[in-house]
Amino acid sequence: MKQIESIKEFGGWLNRFEHESTSCNCTMTFSVYLPPKAATEKVPVVYWLSGLTCTDENVRTKAGAQRYASELGIALVMPDTSPRGDAVADKPDRYDLGKGAGFYVNATQLPWAAHYQMYDYITRELPVLIEAELPVIPGLKSITGHSMGGHGALICALKEEGAYRSVSAFAPICHPSVCGWGEGCFTAYLGEDREAWKSYDATELVKSGVGTLPMLIDHGTADEFLADQLYPKDLQAVCEARGLPLTLRMQEGYDHSYHFIATFIGEHLAYHAKALSE
Amino acid sequence: MKQIESIKEFGGWLNRFEHESTSCNCTMTFSVYLPPKAATEKVPVVYWLSGLTCTDENVRTKAGAQRYASELGIALVMPDTSPRGDAVADKPDRYDLGKGAGFYVNATQLPWAAHYQMYDYITRELPVLIEAELPVIPGLKSITGHSMGGHGALICALKEEGAYRSVSAFAPICHPSVCGWGEGCFTAYLGEDREAWKSYDATELVKSGVGTLPMLIDHGTADEFLADQLYPKDLQAVCEARGLPLTLRMQEGYDHSYHFIATFIGEHLAYHAKALSE
Repeated sequence: MKQIESIKEFGGWLNRFEHESTSCNCTMTFSVYLPPKAATEKVPVVYWLSGLTCTDENVRTKAGAQRYASELGIALVMPDTSPRGDAVADKPDRYDLGKGAGFYVNATQLPWAAHYQMYDYITRELPVLIEAELPVIPGLKSITGHSMGGHGALICALKEEGAYRSVSAFAPICHPSVCGWGEGCFTAYLGEDREAWKSYDATELVKSGVGTLPMLIDHGTADEFLADQLYPKDLQAVCEARGLPLTLRMQEGYDHSYHFIATFIGEHLAYHAKALSE
Repeated sequence: MKQIESIKEFGGWLNRFEHESTSCNCTMTFSVYLPPKAATEKVPVVYWLSGLTCTDENVRTKAGAQRYASELGIALVMPDTSPRGDAVADKPDRYDLGKGAGFYVNATQLPWAAHYQMYDYITRELPVLIEAELPVIPGLKSITGHSMGGHGALICALKEEGAYRSVSAFAPICHPSVCGWGEGCFTAYLGEDREAWKSYDATELVKSGVGTLPMLIDHGTADEFLADQLYPKDLQAVCEARGLPLTLRMQEGYDHSYHFIATFIGEHLAYHAKALSE
């Protein structure tokens, strides 16, 4: 991998890398914040998965997460949200399909399957690369994200038993099979058969008995997408039915923006830091 | 003034307003963060002046300042950097002249003088409006800013004796009369006579005996504009000659970006909160 940027922040370094991804079959870009502690010893990692339209740049610019990562001594890995490049299939007229909308699944349908293998990229390829190249403790990782990336964090943690110490999400798409964003991407990437969607849907995974990790989820009550896209009550119902611990916090008056994320990212990172230190 | 946006953040509210400015003779937009404390009592204000190319949106998105303002119980006022609108003179091919580059002066030259009256806007019109319309303590204010806005903060505090309780700046243009950015804007807005520039130049103001407020200034040693545009040593020399207290901190390895600002904004806001509480 090739370092293409390095910016000092909160005593640590915000670095940006490019590499040739074997999963996505294209050049991928990601950012990593290394806290001051990483200069002298290996640190745990929190993966942040971003939402629709984002690249690695949104969270590093808007969330205020680096301050907490610096204080807590954890690295933050911030991947892109889809494969990129001229050879990659896209729907340029759609913000919620194609580039910027990888939905963290392994596509099985043409033309998407050639590059849209974001699930393998996030859960397999990227951690191997990070652990080989950067001062992080192998295997000691947690995951979080926002909206489409909140969905991504939940399915990664549910499906990859033992891989993550903790999981949380901001305004995640909790039941993608029944919302417009999810139906659009799942139909394109996975095909018309809704059975195939279930293995990438947090609510359906929990319902079918997959996953044991407790979940911390924040939603804003003024989130403009809450009613039509996010469906936290569906996830809550299946968690209650199974007895899977879910801390679902409805934050009064907050919307879907990075201002909401910035407000609670400190609590989420502290939650992960605690899990990563136990 | 008309409220055009309101977003909950850190328990308070990030609001955006439009109003017809008499100083700038156009519609101006600004943002205000009101901390939770402002819901029940009036609070002090810190004015933030942004740098070249910015609007009110950059700092509210990138600096992470609202968290500290929330904790410290201070309002943040974030104005635009120039007059705006189709009727306003501009140099669209220049990022450092015209819209986005008002330089916080009152222009005397055509065509700029018709709208570019940012000094009066920041020091006179805007505080009157804020104090009339929002839950802030009249007259209790401090000022800070970045780059061109750091220059703006310094000249406002130096020239308006007694108006501000404290002043600080991030990577300010300390001696605009001798750097490219300053020479370009001063020539356009104030004319060829360099004597006229001195009243908007922090180094020249201090040299001529103007101002008594101590200054807190941070520069990054890796700032790509440090050598050619910022000239902190010039300001330091005249402050030392006059015995005017200047805390000039050269922060090792930091650049000119909002990542640098984010790292130290907490210390600056704490500095202002202390001065505003005394």
